[in-house]
Amino acid sequence: MKNIKVIAFDGDDTLWVNEPYYQETETQFCNLLTAYLPEEEIKKILFQTEMANLPLYGYGAKGFMLSMMETALKISENRVEPSVLQQIISLGKALLEKPIDLLDGVQSVLAVLQNRYKLVLATKGDLLDQERKLLKSGLNPFFHHIEIMSNKKESDYEKLLHHLDIAPEEFLMVGNSLPSDIIPVIELGGFGIHVPYHTTWQHEQVNQHNLDNSRYREVKKLSEIPELLLHEKN
Amino acid sequence: MKNIKVIAFDGDDTLWVNEPYYQETETQFCNLLTAYLPEEEIKKILFQTEMANLPLYGYGAKGFMLSMMETALKISENRVEPSVLQQIISLGKALLEKPIDLLDGVQSVLAVLQNRYKLVLATKGDLLDQERKLLKSGLNPFFHHIEIMSNKKESDYEKLLHHLDIAPEEFLMVGNSLPSDIIPVIELGGFGIHVPYHTTWQHEQVNQHNLDNSRYREVKKLSEIPELLLHEKN
Repeated sequence: MKNIKVIAFDGDDTLWVNEPYYQETETQFCNLLTAYLPEEEIKKILFQTEMANLPLYGYGAKGFMLSMMETALKISENRVEPSVLQQIISLGKALLEKPIDLLDGVQSVLAVLQNRYKLVLATKGDLLDQERKLLKSGLNPFFHHIEIMSNKKESDYEKLLHHLDIAPEEFLMVGNSLPSDIIPVIELGGFGIHVPYHTTWQHEQVNQHNLDNSRYREVKKLSEIPELLLHEKN
Repeated sequence: MKNIKVIAFDGDDTLWVNEPYYQETETQFCNLLTAYLPEEEIKKILFQTEMANLPLYGYGAKGFMLSMMETALKISENRVEPSVLQQIISLGKALLEKPIDLLDGVQSVLAVLQNRYKLVLATKGDLLDQERKLLKSGLNPFFHHIEIMSNKKESDYEKLLHHLDIAPEEFLMVGNSLPSDIIPVIELGGFGIHVPYHTTWQHEQVNQHNLDNSRYREVKKLSEIPELLLHEKN
């Protein structure tokens, strides 16, 4: 990691709380539908519906709202009370309006690193929703560039590197998701620091991986990163 | 317009058909709800709902789908058949899957202009949806840069100009919407060419405007632009 020029950070569950809000919403959603199926069954069908809709809707809260509506209609065989659908809309709107809770040490880590690297925010989700989160976070001044991505595959990172006009070996991605933040960047020849979060959306989990150890580190907390990078420079 | 370096094009209803698809979907939506209210009334409430949700959802098809659902629940006072809500989801999905119909002369105009200017696509709407439209359009190779914007206010164009590293007087925006494509750019000191489309979303209409004539042109068709720009250079 000697030649790193740009460090990109994922947003959701790397810089600020996200997945717990989704899980809370999902539990409230299941509570509306206990007449039809047990919670675990509903969650399974919701996840299947989200995955089926992903190519069409992409990531983010609006697609999640639409998938909750579709799931409610599906599991009730169109017998759900319309007032329940009204409540699902309210749950989704509340999710979009959640406050931003920064994770521990975010500001001080970004403050230290911005003196030595160009910092980028690389998130995926609904455009306006991610912009709003960034605005609420107050972290905008730390970032040289903001990239809101429809997906985080290798080809998406290739575009980002091209845009930043840097080589893969000058790029380090920091995030909580192995399949979205780390693996595609390593595959491209860049570097990754994985900061696992205590809870991860099923879609972002991998059972095992075989990552090149020279390109990949795992830390428990974001605050370990400045020292880790100093160490790697020597 | 002597110093123009970058020409940005709006996408929806400037390069390809969009609003007619939305209007068709809206009519089908109203047909599902004739038991409750006449079409014109439903359209009015749908528009009000869209406008109320705009700060939260932003522009695009997913927000439109959610606003249709909310409107159906509202005007039926939660008595709508759940199967109707299922049909609204299907209408929205079909809208997201519409083919791309390029407007007349788009390819040849872009082909001519790309030799003389840097071309940019500046659209607003859902991120993935706009990316998909661009992909389907086959127009990607003409553009130096793609900007998918959550809004098209002066501050949004300021960010774009900053990103492109050009002065306002080097920037020309081409689009069908006066309030989104033309007025904010003129206000910033840039140039605008308005290409009215035969139908315009109510939200994008202005009753009157008082635009600086030296910064603003109106053409009937996109194909008039290359000659207009040659003329302006002399």
